[in-house]
Amino acid sequence: MQHIDEALTLIKRGASELLIESELIDKLRTGRPLRVKAGFDPTAPDLHLGHTVLINKLRQFQDLGHEILFLIGDFTGMIGDPSGKNATRPPLTREQIDANADTYREQIFKILDPERTEVCFNSEWMEGLGAGGMIRLASLQTVARMLERDDFSKRYENNQSISIHEFLYPLCQGYDSVAMKADIELGGTDQRFNLLMGRELQKHHGQSPQCVLMMPLLEGLDGVNKMSKSLGNYIGIDEPPSEIFGKLMSISDELMWRYFDLLSLRSVSDVAELRQAAADGRNPRDIKIELAVELTARFHDLAAAKAAEGDFLARFQKGAMPDEMPELAIPLPGDGLPVANFLKEAGLVGSTSEGMRMISQGAVKLDGERVSDKGLVLTRSCTVVAQVGKRRWARVTLG
Amino acid sequence: MQHIDEALTLIKRGASELLIESELIDKLRTGRPLRVKAGFDPTAPDLHLGHTVLINKLRQFQDLGHEILFLIGDFTGMIGDPSGKNATRPPLTREQIDANADTYREQIFKILDPERTEVCFNSEWMEGLGAGGMIRLASLQTVARMLERDDFSKRYENNQSISIHEFLYPLCQGYDSVAMKADIELGGTDQRFNLLMGRELQKHHGQSPQCVLMMPLLEGLDGVNKMSKSLGNYIGIDEPPSEIFGKLMSISDELMWRYFDLLSLRSVSDVAELRQAAADGRNPRDIKIELAVELTARFHDLAAAKAAEGDFLARFQKGAMPDEMPELAIPLPGDGLPVANFLKEAGLVGSTSEGMRMISQGAVKLDGERVSDKGLVLTRSCTVVAQVGKRRWARVTLG
Repeated sequence: MQHIDEALTLIKRGASELLIESELIDKLRTGRPLRVKAGFDPTAPDLHLGHTVLINKLRQFQDLGHEILFLIGDFTGMIGDPSGKNATRPPLTREQIDANADTYREQIFKILDPERTEVCFNSEWMEGLGAGGMIRLASLQTVARMLERDDFSKRYENNQSISIHEFLYPLCQGYDSVAMKADIELGGTDQRFNLLMGRELQKHHGQSPQCVLMMPLLEGLDGVNKMSKSLGNYIGIDEPPSEIFGKLMSISDELMWRYFDLLSLRSVSDVAELRQAAADGRNPRDIKIELAVELTARFHDLAAAKAAEGDFLARFQKGAMPDEMPELAIPLPGDGLPVANFLKEAGLVGSTSEGMRMISQGAVKLDGERVSDKGLVLTRSCTVVAQVGKRRWARVTLG
Repeated sequence: MQHIDEALTLIKRGASELLIESELIDKLRTGRPLRVKAGFDPTAPDLHLGHTVLINKLRQFQDLGHEILFLIGDFTGMIGDPSGKNATRPPLTREQIDANADTYREQIFKILDPERTEVCFNSEWMEGLGAGGMIRLASLQTVARMLERDDFSKRYENNQSISIHEFLYPLCQGYDSVAMKADIELGGTDQRFNLLMGRELQKHHGQSPQCVLMMPLLEGLDGVNKMSKSLGNYIGIDEPPSEIFGKLMSISDELMWRYFDLLSLRSVSDVAELRQAAADGRNPRDIKIELAVELTARFHDLAAAKAAEGDFLARFQKGAMPDEMPELAIPLPGDGLPVANFLKEAGLVGSTSEGMRMISQGAVKLDGERVSDKGLVLTRSCTVVAQVGKRRWARVTLG
């Protein structure tokens, strides 16, 4: 029981919701390796840390001795959005899917043990289902039940059209669980309805229903919005060591603890000790360095992480990066923001001409790098630590 | 143009609705044989005259030189009602479907020319569609549009469950029209929504949309309810000549004209002449005999029809069957109705004991046949001409 309690604590760490805990305990008690399913979109798998929350959790299951079924939804990927309304879902060819699967492997095996990970493709069973099988599958669920799904009900009430095939996708996802005989499925909180569909279809097929573990969406560097490419508040796992390290050092102390829960693989007791140390007065920045070293090392290696740490310390700590600094958000105009205006809006200079002067004097740095071009225009959403002279600092989210 | 006007008059004869007339005229003008589709359920094809309304109309198209595509819905037939709620739709095996198709052929070729009739099975194209094709098909229509269908909207409003696969069946029917490149589809008025689906899907697939010809449901022998086995007001096309003939002779004069429109293959001008003759004083019973001879001959042969006519005349006309008689309906109790009670309720005798006495005297006939068994209990829904003595008559619908 001690063992199962510990496993459960690890499994629930950082999670939003576990359904149904007593069923999971029963499954853990059997002692057999559980079949842990997580589904991924086959479109352009350029992962950032937000995506790795789920993969991290898979790794924890792996560490507990369970089997990881990494599902790539190639069947629906090759269909895309047949209504053509969703331009972000073009139909993919077999070749594109295979290339994307390779990219996935390359990225996820930085976290997962390839020996104990099965990469699955749902075309394997969905293609054999046939048109008749799809009709039988559709017969298992009612229109009213589908319209209970939050986004469907809103769209229906607002007279926004819902194509019938959108009702079939949750059923396909549920049927994947049947075909894979999943014991537990992981997904984002936004996947609740679809994850529960797996339970229903498994029951219909005489299987014990899967447990469902929902993970929260990771906040981006700004600590407010979810991490996403389009908001510019992300850390891509393919970024160079100094970028990953520097961006992690730019987050707030509060967000740091969140990242420890959702991204670190350090033990629950380790993290508890770090929290205690912070409460006892240890500089949070030193703790943040531990997080940055761990995550940078994961996507590169320890030597690269240590080098990035050295660079960072040379640039900032020996200089004067303060423990705390003002945090603010500035809107990014469509045609970009000239750097002198940026400094003025951030309150770091009194006027754009003062900004120009400070740049000429070599007194302006963004993320520790000196700005020499007065004509620089900031055009991308991002979170940046801006410095003017030795004492004026701000962490600015532009977007 | 004269030719097309005549064709159009024949096509519209007896029909409830034609969509869209101008498009049909355009198709007729091309001079090529049109592809005329009608779909039939593969379950137990034991046809009665009600079913032949559609087949008659197909025959008229055939007479006009067009191609008949007699579609047996084997694909959905083999699925049945997967929800199991509809016990009248058990899944059929390939063998059952083939046997039923043979029964169809046997029956329909009493009306249609087999040389110019193509019997089609939709499994041919539906099975090749695959699960992916079904999803693509489902993407072509919206949930809101489906819920416009009369029965769906009522069930949704009344919180009666609608399974998702029920949304797929109209799409399958529509896709049949695409695969068959139908120029026109025939169906009952209750099929309106599904028939129009064919138009929409054909447009989507770049085909000229099919016209839609809706035929009314045929009233049964009682002249009120639609003809159906369960109401007992039907004429099965496999019944013996004397049954078909006798039942037709039992219908009202008004219903006779309806049957001329929907069941007779006599020309429009022939029927107009018969109407004129009746208006000029010709005995409607003689006209009814012409209808009865035509339809009996169709399902047997002319000799059998003439023999049935002779029997009928010997039994009734030479006896005393009046031109007009009271028509009434009597409810049929669950455990049947003893014949003496039946006579009393029909107003033909004053009491059941009088009824018993009349039977003992050999004075009671049902459909011209003497009743000798006083213990006879009527247990089936039917329409019957009852006679007591020479002067008491009634046409009674029991059910």
